[in-house]
Amino acid sequence: MDEEARRHAEKKRRIKEVKDRLYAARTKEKGLLIVHTGRGKGKSTAAWGLVVRTLGHGRRVGIVQFVKGRRETGERRFFERFPELVEIRVMGEGFTWETQDRERDVRAARAALDEARRMLTSPDFHLVVLDELNIVLRYDYLPLDEVLEVLRARRPDLHVVVTGRNAPPELVEAADLVTEMREVKHPFREGVRAQMGIEY
Amino acid sequence: MDEEARRHAEKKRRIKEVKDRLYAARTKEKGLLIVHTGRGKGKSTAAWGLVVRTLGHGRRVGIVQFVKGRRETGERRFFERFPELVEIRVMGEGFTWETQDRERDVRAARAALDEARRMLTSPDFHLVVLDELNIVLRYDYLPLDEVLEVLRARRPDLHVVVTGRNAPPELVEAADLVTEMREVKHPFREGVRAQMGIEY
Repeated sequence: MDEEARRHAEKKRRIKEVKDRLYAARTKEKGLLIVHTGRGKGKSTAAWGLVVRTLGHGRRVGIVQFVKGRRETGERRFFERFPELVEIRVMGEGFTWETQDRERDVRAARAALDEARRMLTSPDFHLVVLDELNIVLRYDYLPLDEVLEVLRARRPDLHVVVTGRNAPPELVEAADLVTEMREVKHPFREGVRAQMGIEY
Repeated sequence: MDEEARRHAEKKRRIKEVKDRLYAARTKEKGLLIVHTGRGKGKSTAAWGLVVRTLGHGRRVGIVQFVKGRRETGERRFFERFPELVEIRVMGEGFTWETQDRERDVRAARAALDEARRMLTSPDFHLVVLDELNIVLRYDYLPLDEVLEVLRARRPDLHVVVTGRNAPPELVEAADLVTEMREVKHPFREGVRAQMGIEY
């Protein structure tokens, strides 16, 4: 082993020591309240990644989609193939700028919250995804205090992911893990349209 | 319909008009080079979400993992259940601070790049994920110019996702869609350990 390789090995060994010590200090297990927010892409897709990870361990997942998109999405089609592992409820009736009917939107949001409450206290799930809940909060279709109370009352070992831009500060405060997806570059600006497998 | 509901509907109608016009102007289809970077969580998980979306449309996915994690991950277990739809190659031999052997890391990175090159020119895939490629670039295990050339030479209608913190500026420049996952809050700081379904 030459001198450079030795120095490399030594440096990596020190990094490993620090990391091992860090990992050893992390001993707590708890159900996490996770928030994916920001204007960039990846908020819901990262939630689907956590779903996959959970399914890989053979655990069950609950999904409530608070806002239904314009079209049949790949993830929905895929998850519907695993009815014994994924319970999915699509509650919204199209983006609010499609429906133009606030009362109907509020009713749909309310029904979605009822589903969320049931899943969050059920013993059946390892992970529950509340997709686009932040959008619903942003439009005041549900009272924030009530939503926070539903999240607080969840089973203590359950992981929950809330997605959507404009997460309210009170939700960020209540969360354990918050990631902001920041848009650095977006192909829509170049006239590229939504494409299969990427946007839907 | 009362006055408030009417104003709401009118406002939403105008938003819908603007959005419809925007969507109509986006007509191009192209294979996207997508980068998930930043210090926050969600870079690889959002890539797995795109995999799920693609599988939902019945299209095939190639995955090269440039850095193998400490343990068997849920996503790997899950994707291995679909050998006809997902081709996955795990090439790294543990995090570099685990191996402490630069030459071995370089060889592993080289083999991974060969797999990537093959997948990127193959007609078989709708999406290819090059997971943690940025890490390998960060350690100079592969020459950046060569990696950029491999990405440039891909099939024009193929979508590619590159993940890992510290994406080099030249890669960001070459990409169509770049998201930075920004860490707002992380439970490791509170002593919570890596948990099944979340970190692995």
